[in-house]
Amino acid sequence: MKNNKLVVIGGDAAGMSAASKVRREQPDRDIVVFERGNHTSYSACGMPYFIGGKVKSSEHLISRSPEVFRGKYNIDVRIHHEVTKIDTTNKRVKVTDLDGAKEFWESWDDLLIATGASPMVPDIKGFDAHGIFALSTLQSGIDVFNYIDKEKPTHAVIIGGGYIGIEMAEVLQERSMMVTLIDMAPQVMTTLDKEMADLIEEKMKEEGIKVFTQEKLSAFETDAESKIKSLITDKQTIPADLVILGMGVKPNSELAANAGIKTGAGNAIQVNKNLETSITHIWAAGDCAESFHLITHKQVHIALGTIANKHGLVAGINISGGNQEFPGVAGTAITKFKDLEISRTGLSEKEAGDLNIDIKTASIEASTIAGYYPGTGKVSVKLVAEKQSGRLLGGQIVGFRGAGKRIDTIATAITAGMTAQQVIDLNLSYAPPFSQVWDPVQVAARRII
Amino acid sequence: MKNNKLVVIGGDAAGMSAASKVRREQPDRDIVVFERGNHTSYSACGMPYFIGGKVKSSEHLISRSPEVFRGKYNIDVRIHHEVTKIDTTNKRVKVTDLDGAKEFWESWDDLLIATGASPMVPDIKGFDAHGIFALSTLQSGIDVFNYIDKEKPTHAVIIGGGYIGIEMAEVLQERSMMVTLIDMAPQVMTTLDKEMADLIEEKMKEEGIKVFTQEKLSAFETDAESKIKSLITDKQTIPADLVILGMGVKPNSELAANAGIKTGAGNAIQVNKNLETSITHIWAAGDCAESFHLITHKQVHIALGTIANKHGLVAGINISGGNQEFPGVAGTAITKFKDLEISRTGLSEKEAGDLNIDIKTASIEASTIAGYYPGTGKVSVKLVAEKQSGRLLGGQIVGFRGAGKRIDTIATAITAGMTAQQVIDLNLSYAPPFSQVWDPVQVAARRII
Repeated sequence: MKNNKLVVIGGDAAGMSAASKVRREQPDRDIVVFERGNHTSYSACGMPYFIGGKVKSSEHLISRSPEVFRGKYNIDVRIHHEVTKIDTTNKRVKVTDLDGAKEFWESWDDLLIATGASPMVPDIKGFDAHGIFALSTLQSGIDVFNYIDKEKPTHAVIIGGGYIGIEMAEVLQERSMMVTLIDMAPQVMTTLDKEMADLIEEKMKEEGIKVFTQEKLSAFETDAESKIKSLITDKQTIPADLVILGMGVKPNSELAANAGIKTGAGNAIQVNKNLETSITHIWAAGDCAESFHLITHKQVHIALGTIANKHGLVAGINISGGNQEFPGVAGTAITKFKDLEISRTGLSEKEAGDLNIDIKTASIEASTIAGYYPGTGKVSVKLVAEKQSGRLLGGQIVGFRGAGKRIDTIATAITAGMTAQQVIDLNLSYAPPFSQVWDPVQVAARRII
Repeated sequence: MKNNKLVVIGGDAAGMSAASKVRREQPDRDIVVFERGNHTSYSACGMPYFIGGKVKSSEHLISRSPEVFRGKYNIDVRIHHEVTKIDTTNKRVKVTDLDGAKEFWESWDDLLIATGASPMVPDIKGFDAHGIFALSTLQSGIDVFNYIDKEKPTHAVIIGGGYIGIEMAEVLQERSMMVTLIDMAPQVMTTLDKEMADLIEEKMKEEGIKVFTQEKLSAFETDAESKIKSLITDKQTIPADLVILGMGVKPNSELAANAGIKTGAGNAIQVNKNLETSITHIWAAGDCAESFHLITHKQVHIALGTIANKHGLVAGINISGGNQEFPGVAGTAITKFKDLEISRTGLSEKEAGDLNIDIKTASIEASTIAGYYPGTGKVSVKLVAEKQSGRLLGGQIVGFRGAGKRIDTIATAITAGMTAQQVIDLNLSYAPPFSQVWDPVQVAARRII
């Protein structure tokens, strides 16, 4: 097995989870990882909180450095190495050592593509001006942090009201900026239905964030030094000395596509349930790859840390000779804006409608914990169920402390194929500091049947 | 239907949930509720926090008063009325009006017994001394509160380290008492396995509670006015001017048993899945009745507010002509000692062993949220699974903020019959302020397979 070499392209969550799993299963195997950036295995999700100052050092976001992988795991991680071509016929990749600008070929027996995703950037002149950032790699987070420290911006504009957008709104305000958020859509957080997203928008406005929906970016104005000065939309000009692009991501699949590997949903690399691509012994995992959706039974592209880690584990098992299927995604996600917790799973009403599924929904407002107990707060829960069967298809939660993680109960119930009645029947935990007698999730389920 | 009378014995969670459900389904039906105490529909679980001062008035623990039930729901609730006999032949109950000490008979077409449970008291002279309390009715909580206000006790002793015991330890210490807790068992919280309970005991000791396990109460010492002075165990004498009995409860089933209604598990009233007793048209619900256990498939007696409310709803549906089965209990419960959250569901290792089930277990320690995010804390998770199939049978959680309610994911997975692998496969929610990438529940599941 020693000469059966695994090459991994990309040294973050998916790539390193897979490499680590293979190392545990096959102690003698040759494993080489090429990472074009500076870091391995970092928490991209933690970057907003590092920028905001809640996490004191970017080092804290790194779970394992290249040195640890080399020393402790015997994984040959090479940072500043970019793979520029995959040669599927001769089973080798072309690599550029970015430090020396040298090129070389590296052969493989198994190849894992874990190239991640890249932030979308607007096709507008000046998008690369000084002061305009998109968050992707840890380095991009460090760059934002350093820019704020040095330039002391006072007016931040965020383009896009998704996860990154609302997290960045919180942390930039904490760093004393006036924060404006614009989104083309009629609502923030388009992964939630509008009435749920409106609760978030309302809270953001209450907290002093300027939120403009249905507003489209049309130009960037820069100064003589190519530094961002203002942002022009179809409705107004907004002064800005810091712009964050939170417009979503696209999978880094060109390298694979150029080698004739098939791409699929959202242009992500097509994989089977074992995470093997259209070419045998070439695997893909993480933000660059498709995932099977548990409810729609279609392939989708969802770029999230949990999925990347699970992809990596499953790919690692299969690459090292095991046989494990990736179980699928339910579309579960969570975030917060200040003390307002936001989570979702499964299908929203809109998504179910787009799929022409006949549904019923229920929305309730309840207390997070006993109404008489200190720290009680409001929580809104929306459930979506199949009309005939009552089978749960989705859930959305917006509320205060303790609200968000309740989405896991819904995600588990959906995965198990439970109906709303079966959710009512669940024996969930209750004590006044933790819940009402009927958990808010069950209050919603009681409304739906 | 107007003359089809429902009589309910007991006006707390189960009785009033049932009466309310029947009222909604059958607006014209005669409904009479006899409650021997002073209050209806109160949160017994909230009493420790009222005693401790976190809840400012006992009124806040009442969700609906007798006046509300009479005025708004047209339910004839009579407090201070004790039912002393059930005449199953003539379908009537004998009632004492405690205010006037008058007796009368009331007939019924359906009878719901919701008489609750009573705290166990030690069979030791002096157990009824001034300053010794057991928590059961709201009035008993008010009595403790008033005693503390008036007598200003300085040394509290709690007998029994279960839910009530550890909650009262917290709140009595907050009211500036030296608190000692004794338990006969080798551990506190016997619904958890010892190594998990030891984490709680350790925390209690750290916080200045004196905890003595394997110690047995042998006598109470009282002063000339019959007020508690000290408590004598098999090992020591402990000064005490307040004693709380937290020794568990027994179902109030004598009234039913005396009428020839069968009793079963733990001496609770035997019921079928529709909550009908051994005699047709006589129903039982709440702390006085049995429940079907989802995992053991045996009847059990578990006295908890969630179950009482669910019993009441199901009984109400059936009494009003519907047909609904009580889904069963998983043994889910949650509490806390200060900032340490404690929860459990399903079978503990000990319980599984007692049932001769071949199991495997895993215990892990993880972070409640991302280790680098402010407010992160430790959480210990123990899982119990069937050895052959890997099917999850139980879970226990002890940890800091955000730890406890994760038990709901385990309870849902157990109810769905999921294996540990299926728990690993769940798409649970992750963001740094809420979880690690692998939720602690999944970290434990990964250890078990």
